Formats: sequence, structure tokens, C-alpha cells
Amino acid sequence: MDIMTGAGLVAGTIVIATLMLLGGSFGIFVSDHAVIIIFGGSISATMIRFPLGAILHGLPLGAKFAFTMSRLSARDLVDELARIAEIARKQGPVGLEKVETDEPFLAKGIRYVADGYDLEFIRDNLERDRDNFLMHLDEGSKIYRAIGDCAPAFGMIGTLIGMVQMFANMTDPSKLGPYMAVALLATFYGAAVANLVCLPIADKLHLKLVDEEINRTLIIDGVLMIRDSKSPTLVREMLLAYLPEKHRLEEEAETVPA
Amino acid sequence: MDIMTGAGLVAGTIVIATLMLLGGSFGIFVSDHAVIIIFGGSISATMIRFPLGAILHGLPLGAKFAFTMSRLSARDLVDELARIAEIARKQGPVGLEKVETDEPFLAKGIRYVADGYDLEFIRDNLERDRDNFLMHLDEGSKIYRAIGDCAPAFGMIGTLIGMVQMFANMTDPSKLGPYMAVALLATFYGAAVANLVCLPIADKLHLKLVDEEINRTLIIDGVLMIRDSKSPTLVREMLLAYLPEKHRLEEEAETVPA
Amino acid sequence: MDIMTGAGLVAGTIVIATLMLLGGSFGIFVSDHAVIIIFGGSISATMIRFPLGAILHGLPLGAKFAFTMSRLSARDLVDELARIAEIARKQGPVGLEKVETDEPFLAKGIRYVADGYDLEFIRDNLERDRDNFLMHLDEGSKIYRAIGDCAPAFGMIGTLIGMVQMFANMTDPSKLGPYMAVALLATFYGAAVANLVCLPIADKLHLKLVDEEINRTLIIDGVLMIRDSKSPTLVREMLLAYLPEKHRLEEEAETVPA
Amino acid sequence: MDIMTGAGLVAGTIVIATLMLLGGSFGIFVSDHAVIIIFGGSISATMIRFPLGAILHGLPLGAKFAFTMSRLSARDLVDELARIAEIARKQGPVGLEKVETDEPFLAKGIRYVADGYDLEFIRDNLERDRDNFLMHLDEGSKIYRAIGDCAPAFGMIGTLIGMVQMFANMTDPSKLGPYMAVALLATFYGAAVANLVCLPIADKLHLKLVDEEINRTLIIDGVLMIRDSKSPTLVREMLLAYLPEKHRLEEEAETVPA
Amino acid sequence: MDIMTGAGLVAGTIVIATLMLLGGSFGIFVSDHAVIIIFGGSISATMIRFPLGAILHGLPLGAKFAFTMSRLSARDLVDELARIAEIARKQGPVGLEKVETDEPFLAKGIRYVADGYDLEFIRDNLERDRDNFLMHLDEGSKIYRAIGDCAPAFGMIGTLIGMVQMFANMTDPSKLGPYMAVALLATFYGAAVANLVCLPIADKLHLKLVDEEINRTLIIDGVLMIRDSKSPTLVREMLLAYLPEKHRLEEEAETVPA
Repeated sequence: MDIMTGAGLVAGTIVIATLMLLGGSFGIFVSDHAVIIIFGGSISATMIRFPLGAILHGLPLGAKFAFTMSRLSARDLVDELARIAEIARKQGPVGLEKVETDEPFLAKGIRYVADGYDLEFIRDNLERDRDNFLMHLDEGSKIYRAIGDCAPAFGMIGTLIGMVQMFANMTDPSKLGPYMAVALLATFYGAAVANLVCLPIADKLHLKLVDEEINRTLIIDGVLMIRDSKSPTLVREMLLAYLPEKHRLEEEAETVPA
Repeated sequence: MDIMTGAGLVAGTIVIATLMLLGGSFGIFVSDHAVIIIFGGSISATMIRFPLGAILHGLPLGAKFAFTMSRLSARDLVDELARIAEIARKQGPVGLEKVETDEPFLAKGIRYVADGYDLEFIRDNLERDRDNFLMHLDEGSKIYRAIGDCAPAFGMIGTLIGMVQMFANMTDPSKLGPYMAVALLATFYGAAVANLVCLPIADKLHLKLVDEEINRTLIIDGVLMIRDSKSPTLVREMLLAYLPEKHRLEEEAETVPA
Repeated sequence: MDIMTGAGLVAGTIVIATLMLLGGSFGIFVSDHAVIIIFGGSISATMIRFPLGAILHGLPLGAKFAFTMSRLSARDLVDELARIAEIARKQGPVGLEKVETDEPFLAKGIRYVADGYDLEFIRDNLERDRDNFLMHLDEGSKIYRAIGDCAPAFGMIGTLIGMVQMFANMTDPSKLGPYMAVALLATFYGAAVANLVCLPIADKLHLKLVDEEINRTLIIDGVLMIRDSKSPTLVREMLLAYLPEKHRLEEEAETVPA
Repeated sequence: MDIMTGAGLVAGTIVIATLMLLGGSFGIFVSDHAVIIIFGGSISATMIRFPLGAILHGLPLGAKFAFTMSRLSARDLVDELARIAEIARKQGPVGLEKVETDEPFLAKGIRYVADGYDLEFIRDNLERDRDNFLMHLDEGSKIYRAIGDCAPAFGMIGTLIGMVQMFANMTDPSKLGPYMAVALLATFYGAAVANLVCLPIADKLHLKLVDEEINRTLIIDGVLMIRDSKSPTLVREMLLAYLPEKHRLEEEAETVPA
Repeated sequence: MDIMTGAGLVAGTIVIATLMLLGGSFGIFVSDHAVIIIFGGSISATMIRFPLGAILHGLPLGAKFAFTMSRLSARDLVDELARIAEIARKQGPVGLEKVETDEPFLAKGIRYVADGYDLEFIRDNLERDRDNFLMHLDEGSKIYRAIGDCAPAFGMIGTLIGMVQMFANMTDPSKLGPYMAVALLATFYGAAVANLVCLPIADKLHLKLVDEEINRTLIIDGVLMIRDSKSPTLVREMLLAYLPEKHRLEEEAETVPA
């Protein structure tokens, strides 16, 4: 669980709800107009903009990954892979069948090794899985960014529609207020959806894409070494050498020198 | 048929129509002012901006390709080309005359082979066709983007004209409303044309440009191999090796690991 | 004549004039305030921004080239050069003196050859002319873009001045309308000048720069080959080989495959 | 102490306070609405956008470094390192134990040398420290920029909420003023936080990142030379040769020729 | 003297003054509020953004160079250097002591030669001067751009403060006008300072940076050749060969072919 995404969304909702309550009731902020134009408009533009496959895979994958976290950091993965290499060396492929791991992608690789597939098959399959996954995560990030970019525009369109109706039907100037309030809600919804949800999620998915690429490449390398019956020490050392500086530093991260 | 483009346009129209109906009637949103300035202004600026040839070819080609889809994915194309290579090997050039295919560009290549043109002539002609086509598709994408960029500006110009007329002729403040409504319609039209039609189509054409380049290059390579009487197995293997990762993965796309 | 630029400007003017007339009279759109601030402000900022030489050469050259077109396409130029090579071979330098051509830059090169200047002198002079010309055309494109970027800002400045005067002198709220109309005119003028004139012209000049570079380089190469008494066939073949793909395709452009 | 950051913040506060007092009292500018939406919204979006580790380390490190300055310029550092090299040569590692220096990172390096650690260990540790530190400083700069980018958007969201409440509850138009004042405060807070605090600090941190990278690399190189018992003259010469032009010029900076 | 910068500023001032006078008096445009927020805010943000050294050197150097011009074009410099080389050859270093030149940087180089310093010393000193100077000119350009970017934001902040005060104290709606006028002045000042002064000057400084780099490098090369007692003809030829195309073309610039 990536608690920060959920916490941020909850905090943002509380902030906006507080402001609404401070000034009266929630009721005046409920607007079917605004919901229809922001979500309807963004969905329509996204349908035109992206192929169906990208939307069907990228959107839910993005939503899922914004809230989940790699259960294991790159450094933990190295330890996990060394542990499994130890088991593989002591008990052979049979021992691997009983190995349990939280990381589904790693579990898949271990299963391939336990089932005795050859090196080429395992590499091809895992690399295809990884590239496929990264492609959809990238599509997800781009779709959230596209929605974050067009939601405020649809908010403005909604407000314009509301204002045209208000001005066109205006007979009694004293009734202008409530109409105006409704019209402004579309702009408000669009700005909130973009700045509180879509754009931050698109940024987060972009960061996760980088991490997942490192982790999954690490897993593929490790699994292939286990398939080759490399010693646990060698597995650990070679994988650590592959790690980019940033991840090798993870342990020191608590003690920032200044 | 690329159903998504049409579906997105229809959905967007429904969304906006719903909002209009919720607030009254369509009538108040009909504005010859707005239509004249958005379309007249965008067309004028596009006439100055692009050469006549680019407009005449790029605009309709873009409109056509936003709604159509490559009938065959890159992977299907490989299968199709392997199938045709099979026929060519069994029945010779004569057999090719009876081959039917949905892809006009492939059909053209096959016809060249069936007619017995030499390799150089076929390569030159097909490459010229492909480059010519990609150039016009790129021009189309750029024209839609240019219109999407200037339509909101012409919307603002239309609204400014309307407001100047309103303020200049204002004798009775109570009549300000309807005038204001008409003035705002130009901004509304400009924002809707840009965000719901032109910018998403420009984005989609850009994505299609990449796909078409891959597909047509694949077809040229395949047709030339068939002209060379290569074996179907070799055709399939070599074309698959040319495919970028993304397209080789197409079959796995349904099973996204997480 | 590049008819499109003129046609676009005329069309844009008609569109805006139509909108003005639909809402009343032209009179209310005449504003010395707006003219002074948009043109005065843009000219002042441009004077600070660019050296005098760039303004004096780039601005009129840009204006001229936005409306004129290379009389000859790259392909026509190759034919023209081959025709002249034919004459040069049959009648010698004397024949070149009678050659007439619409392209002044080509005419200059032919005159050099007819006058018997040596290869180095001709190359140096023509290349210097070409680079000098391209530099000024590039400056012209940049100046139009700079004006297109700052005109809306000066429009806003003009409107702010008008609104400050309106609010400061406001004694009778009923007179607010006409003042407001005048103030908005500056924003209108700025947006129209930028979006209908300056930015499209800057884009068009940028495209022409690319074409002119190709054409003039072609002419230099051709003239030097004629000076070297190369055969017309060789001139045609070598120049066609130099042409970028796009220009070689010009003839096929009518038949866009899809 | 980087006096400029503090001075700029104090000056900015005085400027805004002066403007507030010129027009009345501070009281009307106190708005819990605005504080909640600007800080609550920015914090929420930042929580979603960045991983927890980046926020916990980058934000305070950025705040600290915006106000502190490298006690020593690159040139002073070279002198300091030469001085320490002198001590190390005369008194050996024992003498280093008594060396005092203002730069904590240098002090750490000297302690390693005094404690007799081997070259590899010292290099690894110091480089890890440096990279770790630069990574967090970069995260800090990015977080401040992200807040500076989204604060105005949340200001607009706050103003929209206020205006919706104002219009919805509007019964007496004469009360519109104070409500409007409160609504505008959110936009004001957002613009002030972004333009006076976050964006300038993000820019400054980016400049400091470059300086710190040079200084810490210089210290690592110098400490390693001291560990190798290089002569003070050699240390000074080699380090000066490493310095980028800009820092070598520091002494001349007072006499700008024109 | 770079007359264009001064002329542009004067023209801009006249344009704005004309507009003010056409609508009444100057008095209503005098606003201590606006002056305080635009200049105070921009100075505060600049203090945080840039190190003190950059501000102290870059800002006045930028102001000076926006109004001055290289007394000599690159081509004139070559002539001047050839003239001095002639003197040096005929009269030896003694003759150089009497040489007078308008360009201070050249004068400095000549003095070094006349004083008999060796080649290395002269090269080091002049290159350090040149790099130091270019660094400060670049800082100057960046500071003017940063001010041009934040001035409109502080204008908006000033207007927001004014509007909050207006709405908060609003008891008599008829007094709203003058308050509004004062509030808008801050936005006006910010837009004028940015678009008429800071951004054009930043652009001009950027262009001058390129010219100065060419000229000063030319002077260094020329002075070193004079120190080496090269013949005037060789000096002229070698320096002309160094000149980028653009500057070699300067003489032809009057005759733009079309």
C-alpha cells in the first residue's frame, strides 16, 4: 500500500470539505451540471485522444499503481533474491516450489525456474512481461496527465454554458446570484480534479515507472542467475553492482549530512 | 473504422447537449456570430499559415484517418504477408493476381509483384508512396493542432467584439443580459472546438503516424521478400524480428501482470 | 504571388467586418487609443529588442516574402537549370547572355557565368548572397513572432489604462458602458493583430526559409555545373539526387494513397 | 548564513505589509479560509506527488540550505585543504586530529584520515554521502517548485469556493463586498506564497546544488590527496586545475571590465 | 551608444503618456501602492533568487550594456587590429604605447604588449577578463528576464490587495470606482515594466552576449598575433577566416537580394 496517495487524497478532500462547511452547507456545491461536463467532457476527449487498448489497460493500471507500492525496495529485493539463491543451491529446483514471496513478478520467475524451463524461455517471457507492464504504466501516466490538462478547459466550458443560460434568461437581476454560483461550480470541479487528483497522480506514476523498471530488471537478472545455480554471495554482489547509485544509498538515507 | 473517435465525438456532443437542455433550450446557444468568427477566423489564419497544398491534402487526409483504423495490426500484417508468400511460392506470380486483401497499400504492392515489375521499381514506388502519405498525415496533424491552438483566441476576439457592441449601445442596463450571452457564445464555441475536436484529433493523428510508418515499412519489406520468392517461414521470421518491441507484445496485451 | 497569404488576410478582414456590421456600425470599433498603444507599444518593444539592421532588413523582407512565392518549385528549377545547361552547351557563354528567367537569384548566377567570372568568385558571391538573404529572412520571421507575442500584452496595457480612466472619472455609472467599450478595443486590436496577422506570417516565413534554402542551394549547384560545362542530362540527374525526398515527390502529390 | 534569502523574505513581507497598512488594517487580510486551502491543498497534492522519503528529507533540507551558505567558497576550500595538507605532512595523521574546520563534510573526511581508514573506504563513504546529499537537495528544489506551481491553482480553487458561497447565499447585494474580499484572499495568498517564497527558493536551491556538487567533489579529491600524503603545493595546484573557470575567476570578480 | 534602446524606451514612454493624456490627466496614474509592490516585490524575489554577487555585478552591467554598443563591428575590429599590427612592426613595442583606441578591452591588451609581458600572461589575463565579463553579462540578462517574469505576478498581487481593501471597506457602492482604478494600476505597472522594459532588455542583452564573445575573442587572438610580431596582412587574413559567416557578410548587408 502506498499510503501517501490515499492520505493525500483524503487530506485534500478534508481541506475542501472544511472550506465548504465553514461557508455554509455542502448542498450548494452539489452540481450535476459540473459532474456531467467535467467527467463527460474529459472522457470524450480521452476516447478520441487514445486508442481503446491504452485506455482499458492504462487507466486501471495507473489507478492501481498510484495506491500500491513495490512491497520490496530494490535493496530488499537483492536480499530476497540472495535468500532464494541459497534455497535453490541447498534444495535444488524442488526447494523453489515451496518458496513464498510477496512480489508476484518474482513469484512468476521462481515458478518458471522450479518448473525447469530453459534460460532463453524464462528471459523472453519475463522481459516481455516487464516491457508490456511498463508500456501500460506509461500509457496510464499519460492518460492521467491528459485528463489533468483538459479538465480545467471543460470546467471553463461548463461555466460558459451556465453563464450563457443565466444571461439569456435573466429577467430579474436579483436571481443572478444562484445561477452564477452554479456556473462557477464547473470551473471549481475542473480545477480540483486536475490539481488535486489527476496531475499529482500522473507525476507519481512517472516516478514509479522508473522504480518498477529498475526492480523488474533486477528480478529478471536475479532469477536468471538462480536458474544458472550461481552462489548466493555472487548473486548479491552482482545485483548490488547493477543497482543505480540512488538505490544503493537507501540505507544511508536516514542520515543526511549537512 | 476507428470507432473510438466517432464515439468520443458523439459522447462529447451528448454531454454538451445535455447541459444545454438542463438549463433551458438549444435556441439560446445558436449563434451565427460565433460560427462566423471561430470558423472564419481559424480558416483565415490557417490559409496564411500553411501552403495551399498542405491544406488541401493534409486536412481531409487527417479527417479520414482520425476515423479509420489500420484494418490490420502489425502482427496481423506479418501473418497476411506470410500467407501471400505461401501463395506466391505455390502458384507463382499468377496466383498473386487472385489474392485479395483489405489493405490498399499491400494490394498495390502485390499487384506490382504480380505484374512482374523489377525490385528497384517496386521499392522506389512504394517508398515514395509511403513517404508522401506520411508527409501529408503529418501536415494534417499539424493543421489540426494549429486550429486547436488559435480557435480559443478567435473565440476571445468574437466575445470582445460582442462586448464592445454591447457596451457601446448600452442605453438600458436591463438588456445587458442577452447581449452578454451572445458575446460569451464565441468563447464557448472556440473552447469546445479546440478541446473536444481539434486537439484530441491532432494527438490521435500523431499516434497513427507512428503506427502507419511501421505498418507501411513492414509491407514494403514483405512485398520485396515475396518478389524475391523468399519462403513463407523466412518472411514471417524476418518481419517479426523487424517489429519494435511494442508490436511484438500485442498478443500478450490482454494479460497485464501486476 | 503567394495568393494564400493575401486571401487569408482578406478573408480574416471580411470575417471581422461582418461581425462588426452584424452588431451595428464600424464606427464604434474605430479607436485611436487602441491603434496608438498596439502599434506604438509593439514598435517600441521591437526597437529595444532587435538591432536596427535586423529591423530595417528583416521586417520589409518578411512582409515581401509572406506575399510572394518562389516562382519555381524545386523540381521546376531543375528543369530550368537543365534547359540553361543545354543552351550553354550549344551556344557557349554568349548564348547565356540572352537567357531570360523569372528567378532573380538564378539570373544573377547566369550573368556571372556569361561574364566569364571564375568558379571560386561565382561560388563565393552566390553563397554570400544566399546566407545573407536567409539571415534576413530568419530575422524577419523572429520579428513578426516577437510582435505577435507582445501585441496582446500591449492590448491589455491599453485596456488597463482605459479602465483606470473610466473608474477614476466615474461619476455617473450610466456612462460606464461607452468607456468600457473603448477600453476593450485595445485588447481586441492586440488579439486580432497577433492571431490574424503576425503569428501566421511568422509561421509562414519559417516554412519559406526552409524552401528558399533548398532552392538557392540548388541554383548555386546548378550554376556552378553550367560554368563547368556539364551536360544537361548530368545537371538534371545530379540536382535531382540532391533534392530532399519531399521535393522529389512533388509530382506525385496529387495522388495521395490511403 | 545566506543573508540574501532572509533579507528578501523580510523585504517582501515589509512590502506587502506596507501595502496592507496603507489601505487600512491588517485585520481584513487575515483569512483562515485562505490559509486552509493554500497550505492544505498544496500539502495534499505534494503528498500524492512525491514519496514520503523525498518529502521528509527534501523539504527541511531545502529550507535549511536556502538560508545557509557554503561557509567557504571553492577557492577558500582549496586554501583550507592546502593548509590541512601542510599539517598532515608536518605532524602526520596525529596532527589531523586537532584540525578544526567550519565545513562539516570536510571535518568528516579529515576524521576518516586521522582514524587511518584506507583510501577505498574513505572514497566510498564520502562519495555516498555527497550523492545522497545532492539527491535530497534536488528533491527539495523540485518540491518547492511543485508547491510554487500548484499554490496559485489552490488559490483559485479557494476563491471559487468563496464566490460560489457568496452567490448562493446572496440575498442582499450590499453584503456582496465583504464576501468578495474574503474570496479574493485565497488567490492573493496563493500568488504571494508562490512568487515571493516557493519559486525563488526553488531557483536558489537549484543554483546551490551546482555549487555544492563542485565543493564536495573538491573536498573528496583533497581529502584523498591528503590521505596519500601529497605535498601541499601539489594539492593546491591540482585542485585549482579541477576548478571550473567560474570559480577560478572569483578573485577578479570585483573588477568587471567594460 | 546603442541609440535604439534609448529610442525604444522614449517611444514607449511617449505612447503610454499620450494614452494617459488623451483620457484626462497624469495624476490618476500616479500610485505609490503600485510602485511599492512592483519594485519592492520584484527586488525581494530577485534577492532570494540570485546570489548577491550576481545582482551587484549583473544588474548594472546589464543596464550599461543595454544602452551602449560595441564601438567597433567585428569587421572594423579586424581593420583596427591590422592597423595596430602595422604600427607594432614599424615602430616596435614603443610605438604601441602611443596607440589610441576606443575599445577599452583592446586598449588593455595593447598595453600588456607595450609593457612587454609574455604571451602566456597576456592570454591568461585577457581570457579571464573576457570570461568574467561574459559571465556577468549573462547573469544580467537572466536577472532582467526573471524580473520581467515576476513583475506581472506582483502587479496581480497588488491589484488583489487593493480589491480586497475596496470590497472590505465598501459601504457606499458609488465610491467603488476610484478604489478600483487604484487597484488596477498595480497590474498596469507590472505589465508595462515587464513588456516595455525588462523582457526586451533581457532579449537584447542575450544578443549582445553573442556579439561580445565574438569581438573579445577576436581581440585576444589579434593581440596575441601582434605580440608575436605577425605581419599586418597575416593578422587581417587569419582574423577574417575566424569570423563567423554573419560578420563576414556585414558589408554586403545593405544590398539584400530578393
